[in-house]
Amino acid sequence: MAGCCSWLRGFLFEYDTPRIVLIRSRKVGLMNRAVQLFILAYVIGCYCAYFAEVEMEGPSLWVLVWEKGYQEVDSVVSSVTAKAKGVTVTNSSQLGFRIWDVADYVIPAQGENSIFIMTNIIVTMNQTQGFCPELPGRTSVCKSDSDCPAGTTDTHSSGVATGRCVPYNRTLKTCEVAAWCPVEDDSLVPSPAFLKAAENFTLLVKNNIWYPKFNFTKRNILPNITTTYLKSCIYDAATDPFCPIFRLGRLVEYAGHSFQDMAVEGGIMGIQIRWDCNLDRAASFCLPRYSFRRLDTRDKNHNVSPGYNFRFAKYYTDLTGTEHRTQIKAYGIRFDIIVFGKAGKFDIIPTMISIGSGLALFGVATVLCDIIVLYCMKKRYYFREKKYKYVEDYEQGIHNEMDQ
Amino acid sequence: MAGCCSWLRGFLFEYDTPRIVLIRSRKVGLMNRAVQLFILAYVIGCYCAYFAEVEMEGPSLWVLVWEKGYQEVDSVVSSVTAKAKGVTVTNSSQLGFRIWDVADYVIPAQGENSIFIMTNIIVTMNQTQGFCPELPGRTSVCKSDSDCPAGTTDTHSSGVATGRCVPYNRTLKTCEVAAWCPVEDDSLVPSPAFLKAAENFTLLVKNNIWYPKFNFTKRNILPNITTTYLKSCIYDAATDPFCPIFRLGRLVEYAGHSFQDMAVEGGIMGIQIRWDCNLDRAASFCLPRYSFRRLDTRDKNHNVSPGYNFRFAKYYTDLTGTEHRTQIKAYGIRFDIIVFGKAGKFDIIPTMISIGSGLALFGVATVLCDIIVLYCMKKRYYFREKKYKYVEDYEQGIHNEMDQ
Amino acid sequence: MAGCCSWLRGFLFEYDTPRIVLIRSRKVGLMNRAVQLFILAYVIGCYCAYFAEVEMEGPSLWVLVWEKGYQEVDSVVSSVTAKAKGVTVTNSSQLGFRIWDVADYVIPAQGENSIFIMTNIIVTMNQTQGFCPELPGRTSVCKSDSDCPAGTTDTHSSGVATGRCVPYNRTLKTCEVAAWCPVEDDSLVPSPAFLKAAENFTLLVKNNIWYPKFNFTKRNILPNITTTYLKSCIYDAATDPFCPIFRLGRLVEYAGHSFQDMAVEGGIMGIQIRWDCNLDRAASFCLPRYSFRRLDTRDKNHNVSPGYNFRFAKYYTDLTGTEHRTQIKAYGIRFDIIVFGKAGKFDIIPTMISIGSGLALFGVATVLCDIIVLYCMKKRYYFREKKYKYVEDYEQGIHNEMDQ
Repeated sequence: MAGCCSWLRGFLFEYDTPRIVLIRSRKVGLMNRAVQLFILAYVIGCYCAYFAEVEMEGPSLWVLVWEKGYQEVDSVVSSVTAKAKGVTVTNSSQLGFRIWDVADYVIPAQGENSIFIMTNIIVTMNQTQGFCPELPGRTSVCKSDSDCPAGTTDTHSSGVATGRCVPYNRTLKTCEVAAWCPVEDDSLVPSPAFLKAAENFTLLVKNNIWYPKFNFTKRNILPNITTTYLKSCIYDAATDPFCPIFRLGRLVEYAGHSFQDMAVEGGIMGIQIRWDCNLDRAASFCLPRYSFRRLDTRDKNHNVSPGYNFRFAKYYTDLTGTEHRTQIKAYGIRFDIIVFGKAGKFDIIPTMISIGSGLALFGVATVLCDIIVLYCMKKRYYFREKKYKYVEDYEQGIHNEMDQ
Repeated sequence: MAGCCSWLRGFLFEYDTPRIVLIRSRKVGLMNRAVQLFILAYVIGCYCAYFAEVEMEGPSLWVLVWEKGYQEVDSVVSSVTAKAKGVTVTNSSQLGFRIWDVADYVIPAQGENSIFIMTNIIVTMNQTQGFCPELPGRTSVCKSDSDCPAGTTDTHSSGVATGRCVPYNRTLKTCEVAAWCPVEDDSLVPSPAFLKAAENFTLLVKNNIWYPKFNFTKRNILPNITTTYLKSCIYDAATDPFCPIFRLGRLVEYAGHSFQDMAVEGGIMGIQIRWDCNLDRAASFCLPRYSFRRLDTRDKNHNVSPGYNFRFAKYYTDLTGTEHRTQIKAYGIRFDIIVFGKAGKFDIIPTMISIGSGLALFGVATVLCDIIVLYCMKKRYYFREKKYKYVEDYEQGIHNEMDQ
Repeated sequence: MAGCCSWLRGFLFEYDTPRIVLIRSRKVGLMNRAVQLFILAYVIGCYCAYFAEVEMEGPSLWVLVWEKGYQEVDSVVSSVTAKAKGVTVTNSSQLGFRIWDVADYVIPAQGENSIFIMTNIIVTMNQTQGFCPELPGRTSVCKSDSDCPAGTTDTHSSGVATGRCVPYNRTLKTCEVAAWCPVEDDSLVPSPAFLKAAENFTLLVKNNIWYPKFNFTKRNILPNITTTYLKSCIYDAATDPFCPIFRLGRLVEYAGHSFQDMAVEGGIMGIQIRWDCNLDRAASFCLPRYSFRRLDTRDKNHNVSPGYNFRFAKYYTDLTGTEHRTQIKAYGIRFDIIVFGKAGKFDIIPTMISIGSGLALFGVATVLCDIIVLYCMKKRYYFREKKYKYVEDYEQGIHNEMDQ
């Protein structure tokens, strides 16, 4: 009890601070400061290089250091809707004069984070279940029935072989298949694209974001945007960077591609919305930044199913109850709306960790200078004598005179 | 070799510890402890403030500190399915007496993380490709053919202008368009909503989550839930917080909105499932927390395409082979199932970083007290003399008597 | 001004380093090194345990330490397309001989991160709006009209009760409902699965990833893959780990399930693509790793809507304008392509924090040894005397002789 009391008195009423050797030496003093300066410059230099490279636009150095070391971050949670507008006419020998509106060219009618706009089409009308010659290909051209093993099918066949070899046209015979007949001939993709006017269609993207950790929500339709503006605006990186309505042609251009080119075989466009928010500042500084990128790299070496397309069918029954279908191979552009970003807000934990680590780092300067002073300098023995007090465990008292 | 040996002996058999001045002073001692206490209190105080603000429910302070500083975290990877149930009848002059079941009102039939329930509808039956007067609007009302430039189309038109001005009704003339005729008239949205009974439909949400870093998986149908319970339960925040079956009406209510109101023009509801798991505790504590939020803010100022709707069509051919379609403008509620969360598990690296930084921080107390003791106190020269030993590089030995 | 100058001279030309007691004691010296070794071993040991447990394959210890402490990380942003290929025939009494191709069994025709392959089917043909007996069930079997309250409907009914009790078959009477008639009878799921040949269908998955922070993009079709290889390869964990074409049957096998079993009631398969990239190394080391997991756990206790299925309908009109539909309950496998991963790149900030904290940690060794030396050892008073210099604030000078 008494020991405890005396310990407590010691704990409360005593202050211990290290004893210091203060070496009055220009050389060593300047060296110490130089090393400290070097550490500081290195850290700031790296920041600056990073800063110059990655973020050309906005934040000052201080903000950057702040954001990295003193903020807690959260990833964005997002919900997206997209709606296309536009109508066009086509005139072809197969389909005649025809109007295309939203219900025709958006497939499926609604998606989650993406919307598909059909730009090109191969229609195979009035297919029925039956038997017909396969398209000519590496495995399907035949001379006699023996070339067509019944029941076989491979990855690229339209149906299941019946085992017969039948004339495909006047000069060519191919294996007969059980399939939806006639089989689709997709060897010739219409070019220019059938719905080339899709270039002028518009896309309204609505995006609602949420940072759960900070319970912060915002929409990409900013509070200062008026209804009148929304009714007429078109996104433009320079003049209308916050208008959420995009003209398809321009959007593809921003990504460095040609819409007409892309429309023929289809493709995938990423509409990237970046929400990087510093929630220590006002909410009005938290703004969406749009960027555009083509996601299906058109690479001559990898042209297995290039572009983007898929097949679907509309089913009909006739009077006799037989099922018909119109099969459509739809080429088009899928617009993927990709929302990402991080929000940061001051938080004591990462701040403490940063400050603590920073303090410890400056200790490195002392360690380095000590090494130089005690091992490399001419007067090293003199300095060692001043810094160290040698205590022998075994023969106590002998070496004490070495110490001041 | 001999030098190396002696260095090794020194390295292994010597112990160096800083020499300390122990100042027996109530003032300084108490001040030191006060500063240390302040640092401690500040850290804990911030935690507490944070704790009080953000997390009203569960974790003790210790857990919070633990989770932040000593755990490695991973973000959730999730897979969702949703299935609606319910059937209703409607009776209207246009469609007659009609039953609506799942295959009718869920469009598309399956999605990934969302499900759309149709609640209101504008049907335009028996459209064919043709020519008909445009809906009256700002640009479409005309007096003569000269008001209708042929071939033009704008964002809001139903088709492409033919250049003729034709009677829309007895009193009004509008430009004729090539379009799916008759054109849809969506100026009057049915109110109350056509499928207002959707309020009583139910939604079963199945969610499977995975934390790849910890290889931890769990489902939102918890192990202790029985089949009998699942067959009859309805989610209720108070009584059944883990039942994954939601009644649509109640779900909208939880988000603070009225289902009947929302059903008219549609909207988007977020079903948020939060999986915040501390994997240092038993897996049974890792539970889904449901919350509900309306994602399409209904804002009077931004009513460009308010609510949520899209158009699709059912295509038919008649005996003569002419294509008809029934166009449907479907208003409804899209339920986005948003899964998020983080799992934490003890990991040595962040722990070491936290402890290391914490230790360094307490060094601040010494630095502060030293400044006060050596620069501000009356006896500062006396203390400095005790703490420092001055060593001149140039004239060695002169100042040594200053030192004890 | 003069004071400032002298302060600056002091700041630049003086170097302060702590005075050290160097105790020449085998016991204490060895103990100190042992404690330091223990700290080091603990850290490295934990790494090793972690390493052995989680990552059986690749990275050396150094890489792991490096990645955790010295890199900035970013999460993957991804875009996915999937395309199925394959065709099969079925022969059933209800549907006759029938070919199934992509347009028939992929529903909807395109998705974002998932693709559904129909494997089993319950078709209810020629449904019309009308009145018919409900399926026999717990609430629908009746003896007289009084058992069937008009207008009621529950979660499992096919329609709305009319209030009449009508014969279902020779022996059974059930309540009549207004519904799409005849109502679907899904009590008997075809087994083996109707489209059991789906086992041999193939799936081409294209994945484009992006790390926004580092502006790094890559595709899962690697640059060294040739078109010829892509045309013929099938993914195999051992021989073709980078081929993005999967045979469905084998894919389910990899997840440890049987395709034929899964095909009957459907299910959800996760195709997980992990992109863990160390961007300090060459881009060619950043590779996709595929793994497969069944996401709908088949649990005997939770068989509420087991597997995966949904209903959709194809609508027809006949000559009289009456609407018919063919309702399809589609069972099948939904393949969810789940892309995740983190990229790391050297960054100065986390490095500084790690080094700083590491330095601070070694201070723990000194603290521990000091406690032992000054409180536990026999010669503790002697060591204390050497380490401490006592300074009294009140009666200065009295205790000075205690100090050397």
